[in-house]
Order: sequence, then structure tokens, then C-alpha cells
Amino acid sequence: MIKPLGDRVVLKAIEKEEKTASGIVLPETAKEKPQEGKVIAVGSGRYENGQKVGLEVNEGDRVIFSKYAGTEVKVGEEEFLILRESDILAVVD
Amino acid sequence: MIKPLGDRVVLKAIEKEEKTASGIVLPETAKEKPQEGKVIAVGSGRYENGQKVGLEVNEGDRVIFSKYAGTEVKVGEEEFLILRESDILAVVD
Amino acid sequence: MIKPLGDRVVLKAIEKEEKTASGIVLPETAKEKPQEGKVIAVGSGRYENGQKVGLEVNEGDRVIFSKYAGTEVKVGEEEFLILRESDILAVVD
Amino acid sequence: MIKPLGDRVVLKAIEKEEKTASGIVLPETAKEKPQEGKVIAVGSGRYENGQKVGLEVNEGDRVIFSKYAGTEVKVGEEEFLILRESDILAVVD
Amino acid sequence: MIKPLGDRVVLKAIEKEEKTASGIVLPETAKEKPQEGKVIAVGSGRYENGQKVGLEVNEGDRVIFSKYAGTEVKVGEEEFLILRESDILAVVD
Amino acid sequence: MIKPLGDRVVLKAIEKEEKTASGIVLPETAKEKPQEGKVIAVGSGRYENGQKVGLEVNEGDRVIFSKYAGTEVKVGEEEFLILRESDILAVVD
Amino acid sequence: MIKPLGDRVVLKAIEKEEKTASGIVLPETAKEKPQEGKVIAVGSGRYENGQKVGLEVNEGDRVIFSKYAGTEVKVGEEEFLILRESDILAVVD
Repeated sequence: MIKPLGDRVVLKAIEKEEKTASGIVLPETAKEKPQEGKVIAVGSGRYENGQKVGLEVNEGDRVIFSKYAGTEVKVGEEEFLILRESDILAVVD
Repeated sequence: MIKPLGDRVVLKAIEKEEKTASGIVLPETAKEKPQEGKVIAVGSGRYENGQKVGLEVNEGDRVIFSKYAGTEVKVGEEEFLILRESDILAVVD
Repeated sequence: MIKPLGDRVVLKAIEKEEKTASGIVLPETAKEKPQEGKVIAVGSGRYENGQKVGLEVNEGDRVIFSKYAGTEVKVGEEEFLILRESDILAVVD
Repeated sequence: MIKPLGDRVVLKAIEKEEKTASGIVLPETAKEKPQEGKVIAVGSGRYENGQKVGLEVNEGDRVIFSKYAGTEVKVGEEEFLILRESDILAVVD
Repeated sequence: MIKPLGDRVVLKAIEKEEKTASGIVLPETAKEKPQEGKVIAVGSGRYENGQKVGLEVNEGDRVIFSKYAGTEVKVGEEEFLILRESDILAVVD
Repeated sequence: MIKPLGDRVVLKAIEKEEKTASGIVLPETAKEKPQEGKVIAVGSGRYENGQKVGLEVNEGDRVIFSKYAGTEVKVGEEEFLILRESDILAVVD
Repeated sequence: MIKPLGDRVVLKAIEKEEKTASGIVLPETAKEKPQEGKVIAVGSGRYENGQKVGLEVNEGDRVIFSKYAGTEVKVGEEEFLILRESDILAVVD
């Protein structure tokens, strides 16, 4: 289990299959980094003027995040992304 | 549905048809980025000295925003812009 | 109508006719940007330590502002300047 | 009349006649910018932790200020300097 | 004994044996810096709006931290890493 | 008289006669700037979270300050240094 | 006597005799700057949200500090280092 600290969030990136206009499936290095992810774990929150406030996103949320934000980590064989909640732009239903 | 976080706002850009002085309609790459948009969704607000305050703009507002501000995202086939309320300059009636 | 957000102000620049010492009227590209304007609209104010405070300038004030501050916007056929109150240096009577 | 905003101050620079060691009076472009001025008008003050506090300098004070600080403005035929109080180093009696 | 100050944490890096795809064990200079560590000691905490708050990590926690964060120190023959808690991304169970 | 503003301090630098190892007295341009000074005047203090607090140094103190900090000013024929109290490192008895 | 201001600390660096692997004692210019020191004097503290709080280190503590932090000063014939407490990483027992 991985528990992020403070205002951090652990995401699992959602890969979209990507084809070029002419229908060719792109190999991994030619694809843009994914911008959508699923929230795996959320931190305990952050301090606002001395009071601790919880995060807005919840485990299981599907979110859009800033490309290249955060740090990729590998726990066992799985890859995750750890970023600050402020790098998450929106929740998608 | 797309729900922005914190002080963020989701906009749909309003394209204006653009002609040069001599009446030629410009192809997309030659046009400046649009600076007007319609508010599609607003975040829950931001903290000011420990108190959460709502945003000034509302869903449906027509706004002028800083050129190049924010992040373009594609949800399904539609393109939106997600930016912070501080990148919105004014509401136009 | 254009309603600026927060601590922003909408100005209409006051053009001064400019002549060189020898009396030649300068064409527009040779003139410096105007530094004086008339306040057209003011935002709702800004937060100071959690309390919202109104702006110091009022609609109709004639003001001196920092050269190159703010963003030029065109509403209909009219050009305005939207800037933060902190870019306004003084009110002139 | 010119009324500065917030923590700004309007100064009239005090020119000192300047001679080189050999007694030659320097033409204007060869002189250093004046560092002394007389306070013409003071702003309404600034916010410190949500409370408005007045400025330390008063109209009529003779002050030393940071070279190149502030913005030169011309009102009518007169030239003034508008700067923030924090660019004023000291009052001289 | 080593006691970090404020919001700092002393870690002992956890080395993973590293082989290249072809099975060659890499000599130390060719390995990436470890990103996992064990908490050896934690500081007294940090101030949030005038109140001292304790750290989230505890002695003995296994943590993931930002590569290249912190300062390597040698106490006796042992090497440690001293970093701020904000450079620790997550606790791993 | 010169009265510094806010958290500023007026110093008179204390020149030390400087000789090279071989006993040669250095001309002024070859000497390092003095790092010791005597406090001539102190400002009214600074704001900490909305409360004005006085400075730690007093008139007459002998202090060590950061080399190159502050601004040199000339009042009449005398040269002074005006700097912020935060550029003073220590008081020497 | 030397009394540091605010959150500053006066240290006496602890030199370790340094030999290369082959046993050669290095002359001073070839050695790394010391990272350990003994606290000689501590400042009166710093402000956290309007309240003055004392420092964590005490006179006589043996500390590890950031290489190259602070300012070297010479009082009489002795050399000291003055740095901010935030440049001290840990206390060593």
C-alpha cells in the first residue's frame, strides 16, 4: 500500500489507445503522456491558515491532470504517479 | 461532465469569424487565439486566510480571459479550456 | 457592458496629441503609449487577510498608470485597457 | 493635483548643482540621477495583516530615495517621481 | 545520535540490487540514486500560522522521496540523508 | 540629521587599517569593503503580522554586516550606509 | 563577545584532519569546507505569525550545517561562521 503525504495524491494513469489520422497505432515513445488518471490514494490534507483541510478529490475519482506534473514511482511492478492536488485540474464523471 | 477543482473554471472558447482588412477569411492557423469564452463549470472556490470563498464568475457568463492562459483539454470530441479564475479579466454583458 | 473581476479596473486611454519640438505631429507608431486614462469600470475589490476591501479608484477618475501594464481588449469597436489597481500610480484632478 | 494610490508617494527631485573636481559644470546627461527629493503627496496607506496603516513620510519631508526607483511622470509642465514608500530610505532634517 | 531540526527527517537509503536487462550487476556509479528510505529520526515539527505541528512520518516508516532531494551526511562511518518532510512523497507499507 | 524608515538602520563604517602580509599599507581601491560599522540611527521598526515591533539594534551598537549590503549615501560631507536590519549579522561587544 | 541577531547562530567550525586514501594529509585549499560546528552563540529568535519563538539549538550544541551556508567573520584573530538556524540540518550527540 502507498499512502501519499499532505496534499499529495497517487494516480494510476489511464492510457488511451492512440491512432494517427491514417489509422496507425503509435508505439509508446511516440504517444503523448496521458492526461487522465484514476485516484488510488489521497493524502491527509493541507494547512490553510493553521487549519488542516481535506482534499477535494476522493479515491476512485477519474481526473484530468497537468501533463508532466508529479513524479513517477514504481511500487513492485506497478507504476504510479504522485502529484500535488493543485496539479489536478478537474474531475470527470 | 467535467468539474474543475478549487479556483478553476472550465470555458468553451467563442470563435469569432475573422477577416483581414481586404476581406479574406483567415484559415485557423493564421488567427489569434480567442480571448472570449463562455463559462461551462466553476470550481468550489478558494481559501482566503483560512475561509473558503466562492468564485465571482457563474456558469453561463461570457468572459474575457488572458490569451494563452490555462490548459486545453478534450473531453470526448469537445475541446475546453481549464484556467484559474485569476486568468479571467472581466465579464461581458 | 464590461465588468472587471476582483481588483481589476477597465480604463479608456486618454490620447494626447503629440508634436515634436519643431512642431511636427507624430504619426501613431512614433508616439509613446498613453500613460493617462479614465476609469470606465472597477472590480468588486480584493481580499486583505480574509476581508474583502473595495478599490481606491472610482468610475470617472482620471488616472496615471504604469506604461505597458495590463491587457488591451476590444469590445465591439472600442478599445479598453484592463489592469490591476496596483498598476495605477495616482489619480489626477 | 496628483494623489498617489496606496503606499505610493509623489516626490519632486532636488537637483544639486554638480561640478567636476576641476570645476566644470556638468550638462544634464552627464549627471547622476538625484537621490534627494521633497514629498509632494502621500497615498492613503497600505494593508498590514488586514489593517490599513498610514505612511511614515509626510508632505513636505525631505527624503533620500533609491536611485532609479519609481516612475517619472509629467503633469502639465512639471516632472514628478512616483514611488512606493519602501523605496524611500530615510528622512533628512 | 543525530537529531534533525524543525521539519527535517533523517533517512537511511534502501539500496536495491540493480541489474541491467541482460543481467549485469551495475557498479555503484552507474546506478540511479535510491528513491526509497527508512526514517531514522524526525524533527520537532514546523510552524503553521504560529502553531507548531508535528510531522506526518514516524521513525521506522519506509518512504518514497524525491530523487536528489536533501543533503548526504556521514556520521562516523554511516551515510544518511537529511531532507525536509515536504520532499517525502509517500509512505509505503 | 538622518532618520531611516521602517526596518532600516544608518551605519558609519569602521575602517580598519589594512596591511598586506609584507607590511605594505593598501591604497583604498585595493581594500575590501569594511564589514563593521557603528549604528548612527535606527528606524521605527517593522510589522510582524499586523503589529509593529522595534528593531534589535540600538544607536551606538557596533555591528557586523553583510558585505555590499545597503546603499551608500552622502549627507553634507559625511558618508553613511543605509541598510535593512536583516542585513546586520551580529552585534559585537 | 559576538551576539547574532534574530534567527542567526554563531558557529565555530570543527575541522577534521583529512587524509587521502593513500594517507597524504591534504593542505587547506584541497580540503572540503567543514560541515560540522559548535554553537558559540544564538540569536533572540524569530517571529512566527506575530509571536517571537526561540531557536531550537543551544550554545554548546554540535551541529551539522549546509556546506557554503552563512558568512565567515573574523573577530580579533578568531574565525566564526554566522548563519541562519534554517541552514543547520541537525544536532549530533
